[in-house]
Amino acid sequence: MPQLRKDPVIGRWIIISTERQLRPNDFSNIKETTEEDNNKFCPFDEGNESKTPPEIYAIRKDGTLPNTPGWEVRVVSNKYPALRIEGPLGKKGIGPFDSMNGIGAHEIVIETPIHKDQMGDYSPDHLVKVISTYQERSLDLKKDPRFKYVIIFKNFGKAAGASLHHSHSQIIATPVTPKRVKEELAGSREYYEYKERCIFCDIINTETEREERVVATNSDFIAITPFASMTPFELWILPLNHGADFDAIGENERKSFADILSLVIKKLSIALKNPPYNFAFHSAPNRFLRPGYWQTIDKDYHWHLEIIPRLTNLGGFEWGTGFYINPTAPEDAAKFLREINI
Amino acid sequence: MPQLRKDPVIGRWIIISTERQLRPNDFSNIKETTEEDNNKFCPFDEGNESKTPPEIYAIRKDGTLPNTPGWEVRVVSNKYPALRIEGPLGKKGIGPFDSMNGIGAHEIVIETPIHKDQMGDYSPDHLVKVISTYQERSLDLKKDPRFKYVIIFKNFGKAAGASLHHSHSQIIATPVTPKRVKEELAGSREYYEYKERCIFCDIINTETEREERVVATNSDFIAITPFASMTPFELWILPLNHGADFDAIGENERKSFADILSLVIKKLSIALKNPPYNFAFHSAPNRFLRPGYWQTIDKDYHWHLEIIPRLTNLGGFEWGTGFYINPTAPEDAAKFLREINI
Repeated sequence: MPQLRKDPVIGRWIIISTERQLRPNDFSNIKETTEEDNNKFCPFDEGNESKTPPEIYAIRKDGTLPNTPGWEVRVVSNKYPALRIEGPLGKKGIGPFDSMNGIGAHEIVIETPIHKDQMGDYSPDHLVKVISTYQERSLDLKKDPRFKYVIIFKNFGKAAGASLHHSHSQIIATPVTPKRVKEELAGSREYYEYKERCIFCDIINTETEREERVVATNSDFIAITPFASMTPFELWILPLNHGADFDAIGENERKSFADILSLVIKKLSIALKNPPYNFAFHSAPNRFLRPGYWQTIDKDYHWHLEIIPRLTNLGGFEWGTGFYINPTAPEDAAKFLREINI
Repeated sequence: MPQLRKDPVIGRWIIISTERQLRPNDFSNIKETTEEDNNKFCPFDEGNESKTPPEIYAIRKDGTLPNTPGWEVRVVSNKYPALRIEGPLGKKGIGPFDSMNGIGAHEIVIETPIHKDQMGDYSPDHLVKVISTYQERSLDLKKDPRFKYVIIFKNFGKAAGASLHHSHSQIIATPVTPKRVKEELAGSREYYEYKERCIFCDIINTETEREERVVATNSDFIAITPFASMTPFELWILPLNHGADFDAIGENERKSFADILSLVIKKLSIALKNPPYNFAFHSAPNRFLRPGYWQTIDKDYHWHLEIIPRLTNLGGFEWGTGFYINPTAPEDAAKFLREINI
């Protein structure tokens, strides 16, 4: 069973992952990892459904059966989950240390049956199906009262943490609200208390007026390089209509979101020659069980997607201080991306 | 002039570094960086003193002049500083955004004149000289009332952010207290208020009694793999005698610290085949100008060194949540390191 442990000084939770346990000798070949061999057997390819854990959800052609070919988007449990779905939370303290069982969910969204296609290659309709899959799984996982937060994220490229080339994203449900999420919620709430406005709405208004950090807009979304970008070419996609929950968006927004996400991914891919990247949805926590604690969240929090191309290496300064040195001004990155025609 | 910018939601400061400015096209070759060519010209070698900015401090053989050969440890300004020493703070707000001039210091400690030697190769006496250089520079930088924090850190290996192979560390003085430092200070203060004990002293006592996460000890220090290790083989070195400031240690502690640091670096190097790593000193902020705000810090904060081997890649989960998945239990890492004989 994996274990959750809390840093007693700064309150950060970490997962000691027994399923993926690495022994010291496993690290000695670390420099020799290479790019994916496209001829290798791939468990995510159509026809290899029996090589993954059973299907949790899929969008399929009519008449096809679960765990057989015919799917367009397919969700399975991670074969090496960071967290396990079964069991009690088992909270305990040992001296100054807090721990609990590694209870949670860890799912893989296989975004396409086509081995070589990446997110920028999908048709608009297909990307809408991927996004609606994220929504369905998020809404379903939130029914479990043990899970406080559901995060949807993607690692593209080895340097960004991906271990398989076949296009996929991941969903993890955690039994604690992660530290970074709490910070965002607290920052948004404080701003709202002071100004009676959503800070993300204020950011959207400022950026729209100044234009210099805007990469793209459409009827429902804006893509910007944020003012205090942590890394070169960091990007945020925000809905123009205020809303706290990604998984509450409707059909029109799903379509507009797919359009702007596809555009931004294509621009990044051309600008930076197919860089490794991560993205993560920042959406409100599973608060329906604790309505009092989160009572203002619908007003003060604003869901968005954060995309981080992995272009620079973190050093001791970043690890030691939480301060980041970014060698590319977001205004320059936005201008460069705006000027790329798709 | 570099610029400091504050994230309006989570309060994290970042540096937009104009000196190291990278244009979009600079990133396209990013995958082709290779290990250092030892035959290349090195500005840190003895005899090349004129190729660096002028010497700020050095430990030298008697009778040798600044900026000439004869040094054992040499400190110069970073040729491409993340922050600049001259100028006013220039704080300003634009809409919801806060920024200030990138004022600060950014120094390089060239740890040895010998190009090929790394930290594990130094004699005990030589490592003491490096540590005393860190101390001298920290004490000197704290005289500048514009600087709130001085961080001493090391990047070893390209994957850890090092751009030159010749053994060196870095010192950055910042005009704001970094977020991560504030979190540590706040966590320590809260614990002290509740228990009237230092949390780090409690951690030392617990670890000493349990033994399972202890890597090494000597008369003045303990090296542990922390309970909630963020990464495999994360290591902390803590002084057994409570103290908030690294730069206040005396001659005996300097010697014991050099001994345990050398031992730990050698063990890591053997265990993980010379892995890339970062280390950073976590020491109290420059508080002498604001005695009221930091009045309890001497009691509640405890300086230490954090060492992070760079063995795994961060993914979207870590970026999105601040939650870390660690595939190696710290108890296993500690056992493995304990059993390596130097």
